[in-house]
Amino acid sequence: MHKETLEDIGEKELINRLGKFMPINQVSDDCALIKTKNEDLLINTDSLVENVHFNENTICPQDLGWKAVVSNISDLLSSGSKKTIGITISLILPAKTEWIWVEGLYIGVNQALKKYGGIILGGDCSKGDEKIISITAFGIQGELELRRNACKPGDIIFTTGIHGLSKLGFMIQNKINFDNDVSLNEKLISKSIKHFCRPQVYPNFLKNLLKTRTNKKTRRIGCTDSSDGLFQAIQDLAIASNCKAIINYEKIPKDKNWPKGDKWDEYYFFGGEDYELVFSLPKKWANNLTNLNKNIYEIGYFTNGGPSIEFKDKNKNQLLKNKPFKHF
Amino acid sequence: MHKETLEDIGEKELINRLGKFMPINQVSDDCALIKTKNEDLLINTDSLVENVHFNENTICPQDLGWKAVVSNISDLLSSGSKKTIGITISLILPAKTEWIWVEGLYIGVNQALKKYGGIILGGDCSKGDEKIISITAFGIQGELELRRNACKPGDIIFTTGIHGLSKLGFMIQNKINFDNDVSLNEKLISKSIKHFCRPQVYPNFLKNLLKTRTNKKTRRIGCTDSSDGLFQAIQDLAIASNCKAIINYEKIPKDKNWPKGDKWDEYYFFGGEDYELVFSLPKKWANNLTNLNKNIYEIGYFTNGGPSIEFKDKNKNQLLKNKPFKHF
Repeated sequence: MHKETLEDIGEKELINRLGKFMPINQVSDDCALIKTKNEDLLINTDSLVENVHFNENTICPQDLGWKAVVSNISDLLSSGSKKTIGITISLILPAKTEWIWVEGLYIGVNQALKKYGGIILGGDCSKGDEKIISITAFGIQGELELRRNACKPGDIIFTTGIHGLSKLGFMIQNKINFDNDVSLNEKLISKSIKHFCRPQVYPNFLKNLLKTRTNKKTRRIGCTDSSDGLFQAIQDLAIASNCKAIINYEKIPKDKNWPKGDKWDEYYFFGGEDYELVFSLPKKWANNLTNLNKNIYEIGYFTNGGPSIEFKDKNKNQLLKNKPFKHF
Repeated sequence: MHKETLEDIGEKELINRLGKFMPINQVSDDCALIKTKNEDLLINTDSLVENVHFNENTICPQDLGWKAVVSNISDLLSSGSKKTIGITISLILPAKTEWIWVEGLYIGVNQALKKYGGIILGGDCSKGDEKIISITAFGIQGELELRRNACKPGDIIFTTGIHGLSKLGFMIQNKINFDNDVSLNEKLISKSIKHFCRPQVYPNFLKNLLKTRTNKKTRRIGCTDSSDGLFQAIQDLAIASNCKAIINYEKIPKDKNWPKGDKWDEYYFFGGEDYELVFSLPKKWANNLTNLNKNIYEIGYFTNGGPSIEFKDKNKNQLLKNKPFKHF
């Protein structure tokens, strides 16, 4: 008799089932939360698995160390962390791993910590068949609680940047062939590789939100990061907040050299490993923020309705039938 | 040219080299520490890797979940945690893993949390070639700071229990053959399997230490757990505290059915996955504690001298030439 496997049930259903083992007051979000007497701590773990998330051809150990830290800090920021305390590093490495590789990894880790704050608090290392870098990052919850379930109908949806570049960088590094009729711009190539290997995050984001807040009592904002792609991020917000996202395709910010066509739209929306923030604000606050910061992009709004995503231009809705990023 | 690998440098040297990437005020100990305004948090991560730490023949998923939690709580206790807040679980699983296996794992996890306190705070799951369960546990630092580097010459060395049972349990589960002339007692067999599959820890240990303290100003105690074996635990204390351990072989507590012989001494001292506490106390405090709690065992003392271990009975020193537990 065939017993049900993780491949059968898929990632979303797996997360759903595992959630039932957690106490009901623990909300599944980008981060876990520990309440202490004075300050609440945000905790996030991200694992990078060889031949799933990276391989030797796509990324060097320094960049991998950088990226492992940044992907965690991105989750902390998307929950409203005002300061990164530090990280613990759990490594699984084959015995034949070269020391120079491990050293490179730690150099990249420390470069990211130097830029975004935090120290190495501890770690452990075990033998295994494949390389796995698992980082747990700790941050202090700021005044604004950014949560997936805090979007409201009427909110404007924003993103901090351009999507799809990391996916393109990954494909270039893997020497994946594109359509013959597409010749990629040199600047786009180098930018995409940089986005894939050395992603950046937005430590000033929270300060700008606080500066432009219209009502000091508002402490909860809908937000997540787009580490599993822009579509997944919007879907996570819509499901957790139980409302409907209307996306304006024309307003989506693209690199000026990004090719046209359905395939490229798919890379854009479902690429993943973008570490942009995707969030929603009431109209007045939204206006204040766009006046202060020109580098954020309004891409749509939330409205009443079951948790779903629609394009304003109905012709674009076929795009959403593509499969999102999946782990199993 | 052959580049230096982890196999070449060994686990201890690897930990030493990685320590250089940490800020100098971060001490390598059983746990990492986060200072918050009111309470300090203890953090520990332990990873269990398939075919390194476990396999399908040796342990069922429920027991594995239990053990993954308990091995972390053991580290928290050995640093002086007065309360386990909770854990995050990071899983790497092959796509063909059966759901029933994952469910079993979580049942075991929750059984351990029910017994020793704490909740599941969060987690993540990725695809990989081999099963890996990585648990990070969070505890609150109690009044007594238990640290590897706090042993002092003159201190009495204690352990909370018998060693070697877990190693024996592992060998029995793996159907490893013993010498023909040894027939194992049935009670010892079942006890060993239980120690390997469902290890216990000592949540009352800290309370008993506080009750018997002779000087309220003493806040630091030398302590670690014996997850890498009794010998490794004593060695870690001796090195971190820079003093010499004298062990009284006759006083080492053994199961009454434990066979005699060098091989069995080796299993005893170097077995690993014992979750006993190994600690040292000044004489007066030591007397108070042994009067209160008959289930702890005095096994020797620390004295001045370079970091090392010696048996009181010099004939036993050849034992120490055996290799300790190593990961690479």
